[in-house]
Amino acid sequence: MPRLLIGNCFTDELAGDPALLPQAHLQTAAASAQLLIWFARPDDIVVLPQEPEEELVDYITALTGTPRSSFQVLVPPPGVVGTDLLTADRLADPEFRGDLAKAIADRPVEDVIPLTPEASVVELGRALGFLEAVPGHAFVGQGGGMLLNSKAVFRAVAAGSGVPLPEGGVCTSKVDAEEVIAGLFAKGYPVMVKRDYSCGGLGNEIVSPVDGYRPVGAERVLVLPDRAAIRAYLDERWEWATNGSRYPAVVERYVPDSRGIFVEFVITDDGPVFSEHGEMLSAPVANAQVIPSPGLPPRALPELVAAGGRLCETLRMMGFRGQFCADAIVTGTGEVMFTEYNGRITGSTHIYTVIGRQLVGPDYADSRVLVEYCKWPVPSFTAAAEKLAAAGLAYDRASRTGVVLVKAFSHADGTVRFCVIAEDFEAAEVVRERVESLFLPTPA
Amino acid sequence: MPRLLIGNCFTDELAGDPALLPQAHLQTAAASAQLLIWFARPDDIVVLPQEPEEELVDYITALTGTPRSSFQVLVPPPGVVGTDLLTADRLADPEFRGDLAKAIADRPVEDVIPLTPEASVVELGRALGFLEAVPGHAFVGQGGGMLLNSKAVFRAVAAGSGVPLPEGGVCTSKVDAEEVIAGLFAKGYPVMVKRDYSCGGLGNEIVSPVDGYRPVGAERVLVLPDRAAIRAYLDERWEWATNGSRYPAVVERYVPDSRGIFVEFVITDDGPVFSEHGEMLSAPVANAQVIPSPGLPPRALPELVAAGGRLCETLRMMGFRGQFCADAIVTGTGEVMFTEYNGRITGSTHIYTVIGRQLVGPDYADSRVLVEYCKWPVPSFTAAAEKLAAAGLAYDRASRTGVVLVKAFSHADGTVRFCVIAEDFEAAEVVRERVESLFLPTPA
Repeated sequence: MPRLLIGNCFTDELAGDPALLPQAHLQTAAASAQLLIWFARPDDIVVLPQEPEEELVDYITALTGTPRSSFQVLVPPPGVVGTDLLTADRLADPEFRGDLAKAIADRPVEDVIPLTPEASVVELGRALGFLEAVPGHAFVGQGGGMLLNSKAVFRAVAAGSGVPLPEGGVCTSKVDAEEVIAGLFAKGYPVMVKRDYSCGGLGNEIVSPVDGYRPVGAERVLVLPDRAAIRAYLDERWEWATNGSRYPAVVERYVPDSRGIFVEFVITDDGPVFSEHGEMLSAPVANAQVIPSPGLPPRALPELVAAGGRLCETLRMMGFRGQFCADAIVTGTGEVMFTEYNGRITGSTHIYTVIGRQLVGPDYADSRVLVEYCKWPVPSFTAAAEKLAAAGLAYDRASRTGVVLVKAFSHADGTVRFCVIAEDFEAAEVVRERVESLFLPTPA
Repeated sequence: MPRLLIGNCFTDELAGDPALLPQAHLQTAAASAQLLIWFARPDDIVVLPQEPEEELVDYITALTGTPRSSFQVLVPPPGVVGTDLLTADRLADPEFRGDLAKAIADRPVEDVIPLTPEASVVELGRALGFLEAVPGHAFVGQGGGMLLNSKAVFRAVAAGSGVPLPEGGVCTSKVDAEEVIAGLFAKGYPVMVKRDYSCGGLGNEIVSPVDGYRPVGAERVLVLPDRAAIRAYLDERWEWATNGSRYPAVVERYVPDSRGIFVEFVITDDGPVFSEHGEMLSAPVANAQVIPSPGLPPRALPELVAAGGRLCETLRMMGFRGQFCADAIVTGTGEVMFTEYNGRITGSTHIYTVIGRQLVGPDYADSRVLVEYCKWPVPSFTAAAEKLAAAGLAYDRASRTGVVLVKAFSHADGTVRFCVIAEDFEAAEVVRERVESLFLPTPA
């Protein structure tokens, strides 16, 4: 029986109007949706916002061993923002629904795997008779996905579940935010201001009464020496921080010299199942990840898994099912504090489930580390793949090391992402340097 | 040890800017806050937005038997919207905090009872050292109260908890809303459109493809015969329905000829404790309540309590503690569907806990019904009380029947609320007619 994979990429505008998104953001989302090809298995139906690039499909299927002819790709007609996102109108399109109905006529859908848990996917399931195959359909069908991807809701639910958080607050007014910022400054802490629903540190800013912090996991650091400066900052940035007064802003202690760790789970009817952990490297915003996180302090991992599991139990009670990722920091003294959650397939899920477990092998984490690097400038996807092969850097099944291109070529900035499979992080860094030099002019 | 009662009345602007509220709404909130006097016990500290009206205090304390001199009332200096609401700035006021600190210097706060679970109350507890006495402080301190009082969040959490709901959706765009409305119309259902965070049916509208429905629990009924009419309606009302694009709109099946029933619980560390049920009478918006609900279909009450309890279990996992009310409808065929929740002290709580259990007696529900009526036009609170006494209608402890004035005189519309304690609803209606005639000109 087929699974239905739906490339509805998470966007800042999950809870709003996708027409407001900038063009580069839309292009990135369209490229991200193609990550679903990694998950494709024989008999699957993969719904994508655009026809996937054949070079990418050939490359991925050669690695996964899933013949391209064994799964079906469906692309609905364009919607309100064109062809970059699988918006609700596209999943409701009668022509698309007709095609999908035909594709599943003789073989009921076994499981629905959306990138993002959205009501539009539940509606599709209801209309075509596979509602029960949509994980957490009752909850997700009533907008639950928004609650699972909100930084503000996260803080309430996590605090209420007994999960440790950086001190701070969820602010619905500038006055509240000023109080929280001033209170944290008074304790000698710098502060992170977070815009809800943003990704990869792109909606975060650090503010501090004193100079000297590097931005990590945030776009910039601002020095606010006194109350008047805090007030002026909020006057200027409140509309930004609240998405135009639509969502509360999160204001929390920023802990310098912390590591950004994520823990992923699958939330099932029976409870959470731990999947993997990894480290997000930011310079200043997310630009690499290491799976599994190397050399965590001994008490950190059990605490990450235990607290993450508690959070999952609450979300399971709320009705959520599916892929879940909790982000945390591990401070210089080994303390664990959770910073947000993402109830969806993340940019890490395919790395460890497919490149790790499937390609390298179920025991990948015993002897290998998977390091994904962003933004390698290349002429094209094919040129990058060929260059890697010619340099002897492409992934080698015998040695179980080498480089895998992870994602479609980004037409927004002319880069690709690649994953180095190596014995440890240091070895991966050596490979990264070689990879990044491939298209540089040869030194004289 | 004292309890701390905080009169922070719930408002539409819980999650926004209270300065946007209309004057009448502010006045109503100020009057509602005085309901806390019903709960006052010796040693309590009651924080109110304004000095309570002495006539009201004398009246209530004479009934509860709590001497006015045995509890303390504190009123913080005016805040951003003056003296009608206990806004966060007022609870943070240094002069008020100084007074409160003095009041609790030798006697630690045992329990904090806010009308509404707000982060500002948690902040107060943190600042003055009684954080642990604030119910659900971890959750509420991070904005959890907003989640417990949102009609949109309700639908996701309730559906995910296996609680039956009227068919419908949580809509973040006009396109979504149009689809949901058209889908329900196609099934022959009229539709309720709900504005998040509104109270008492004042944020609800009914739309229907055909004429003939009376508005119950909503302000009006609009006939939308076709898609174009639905679209035009949404174009006109979307900003209203979404509080200016700030919250999703709830769109759900409206079931005519249903009864509006509420079930109240206290959510404790150990689980939910059922408190009471009652019926909300709307003509067209909430104007009376009957406690307990008379003559429910036999299967309805167990189902209301069981499903409400499931919802409470989820909210307990999320970290909420305290007074909780779930609203439901019981349809003409006896079906139960839940329609919203309110995680706060409601306009029913004091009726059954104080007027019922305390004044009439713990067994009040065995032989009495409590019926509260709104909007009795009177010259003043004292005039109303005197007239009731003179007419022999005032509550009589011997017969355990009669009339109790419930709430401060509303300066917004010149009315009071009164509660008839009677043997059954029909007897209460007879008393109501007598009460409402008291200030009418004597017929010639």
